[in-house]
Amino acid sequence: MSKYLNARFGNLEAYVPGEQPRDMVYVKLNTNESPYPPAPSVLDAVNRAEVEKLRLYSDPECTVLREKLAALYKVGKENVYLANGSDDILNFAFMAFCDAEHGAIFPEISYGFYQVFADLHGIPATRVPLCEDFSINHRDYCNRDGMIVIANPNAPTGMALSTAQIEEILQSNPDHVVLIDEAYVDFGGESCVPLIDQYPNLLVVQTFSKSRSMAGARLGFAIANKELIADLELIKYSTNPYNINRLTQIAGAATVDAEYYTRACCREIMETRAYTTIELEKLGFRVLPSCANFIFAESDRIEGGELYRQLKSRGILVRHFDKPRISNFNRITIGTRSDMDAFLRAVKDILG
Amino acid sequence: MSKYLNARFGNLEAYVPGEQPRDMVYVKLNTNESPYPPAPSVLDAVNRAEVEKLRLYSDPECTVLREKLAALYKVGKENVYLANGSDDILNFAFMAFCDAEHGAIFPEISYGFYQVFADLHGIPATRVPLCEDFSINHRDYCNRDGMIVIANPNAPTGMALSTAQIEEILQSNPDHVVLIDEAYVDFGGESCVPLIDQYPNLLVVQTFSKSRSMAGARLGFAIANKELIADLELIKYSTNPYNINRLTQIAGAATVDAEYYTRACCREIMETRAYTTIELEKLGFRVLPSCANFIFAESDRIEGGELYRQLKSRGILVRHFDKPRISNFNRITIGTRSDMDAFLRAVKDILG
Repeated sequence: MSKYLNARFGNLEAYVPGEQPRDMVYVKLNTNESPYPPAPSVLDAVNRAEVEKLRLYSDPECTVLREKLAALYKVGKENVYLANGSDDILNFAFMAFCDAEHGAIFPEISYGFYQVFADLHGIPATRVPLCEDFSINHRDYCNRDGMIVIANPNAPTGMALSTAQIEEILQSNPDHVVLIDEAYVDFGGESCVPLIDQYPNLLVVQTFSKSRSMAGARLGFAIANKELIADLELIKYSTNPYNINRLTQIAGAATVDAEYYTRACCREIMETRAYTTIELEKLGFRVLPSCANFIFAESDRIEGGELYRQLKSRGILVRHFDKPRISNFNRITIGTRSDMDAFLRAVKDILG
Repeated sequence: MSKYLNARFGNLEAYVPGEQPRDMVYVKLNTNESPYPPAPSVLDAVNRAEVEKLRLYSDPECTVLREKLAALYKVGKENVYLANGSDDILNFAFMAFCDAEHGAIFPEISYGFYQVFADLHGIPATRVPLCEDFSINHRDYCNRDGMIVIANPNAPTGMALSTAQIEEILQSNPDHVVLIDEAYVDFGGESCVPLIDQYPNLLVVQTFSKSRSMAGARLGFAIANKELIADLELIKYSTNPYNINRLTQIAGAATVDAEYYTRACCREIMETRAYTTIELEKLGFRVLPSCANFIFAESDRIEGGELYRQLKSRGILVRHFDKPRISNFNRITIGTRSDMDAFLRAVKDILG
């Protein structure tokens, strides 16, 4: 840290991304990437002719991609906002809709970045404990005084709320934005997108990183009432108008054209998730009921951190959080069937 | 704007990017893009195999690209910070090194975004008038109380300060960051990069958008003392750790490998700039002495806004700023020789 840094950042604890070790080739089940490549249409669309055009700025309005997403989700293009990954949207939302007087409320166990955004912008954060079974009690988020942020399905549990439960939250907080982070919704959750016309306080955030196999392209989007979208646009045009590069816009548009492919990948992952869950349960694991492309599991037979380390030494990466209540669990991304068989073999081997 | 937006953004005036009209094909001389495609090595590097890997997150440390840039500029990799366009770095710098008590000082006529960043973060901005001849008087920036921000060469004038003049600014402001925005330095300016070891307060910002023909890939970088770089990293890991997508990292690395190509493009543009300047002067224009890939010119024979509009109706886009002192000027990006001949023909036609 330099002596020039704003003192308010002195104690800021940044987010720690999942590890990307390079010492060997791992079966990578630690950052919730898709095991499938982007749609074939993406491979065709990002071609030499498009790379040549990199000399020109990208379209700051992302017109083509925005119109395609609007058509897919049956909303207007003024209801769609695009960003350099959904983290960018979360950051802007904390900045736009909270401040030192208007806090944020989110589950104690959830995406770790929410707390970082709150700290970065000097926003008081209220962390609400999960229930005993790791579910979110939606009533804890009704009639609150601040922006509500809920990952649905939640991470790292994978457990989801119903749209009806989220409607109760929306109805009881008309004066605050309710941000529903649907990064994992395509793997069995229920999306709130159809509610945007009814609830001007609803901000739905999604990403191309998980179900759309494009984590490395950095593309997130928000769907909401046009006034909320205009707020996000205002922040974007005041920080980085050309926030999404040309090739990502093209790859994104080609992905939306291949929605059938996305759906097929999601079905495959959900089947592999069911298979992996059953196999882990046979080994005595407790697996939380997941609607995401990962499962969160623990066993009485081995401590969570120990399992993580032993898997890593066998070339299998999963994610372990050394935090209260969840330190005995590991978050395991659902890969291909063969990835999961390798994982299950390693687990059996470790348990002996 | 929604009723949920933080009141402090109520009067925020966002940046207005250069227009991108789609009604016809224009000779586009309005956003300082390169007329040349990215290096041939970039066209090879961004291939189908790399597009397939988009399912995986990008390297948040940008290891390969960072090491190549460090080698090119003869600095350590801990002296290099990479971002999603240099606007992202400017935004972070205003956020990290200023606040309501610690303001920013920059030229009244310069990159319009500096004022937007100041407004966004509630930072008092001091705008220092240019000299009569549109140059920056570097002494105006000595012994000031706040972060100094200077585009060198300046935009939209194209006029540059010498390294010696910037050293005076650095020496007289040891307690404040001096940000030198070198977006256009490769077209004849003198870079401050060699000074980073001597001045812990020096933050040099550059971009791949101009000399490196990659405006559409969104890639900017900063070079500074490692403590300042660590400050920028802290903000990045607290907002968007995967800020640069995979293909941009690959394209950037291939561009650095082809530095000879970048230099050749810059030489070509400088020659075309000299040619265009002479031709405009023959037509009676006053052209400011430019070290950038654009020129800033005015004529007694036609009002600046009128020239802009008449050029546009003839399919030539230039940039006109309807602002005090410069409203009679137009900023004209240097394209290929044939672009500039088309521009000059149109000017002659308009002047009759």
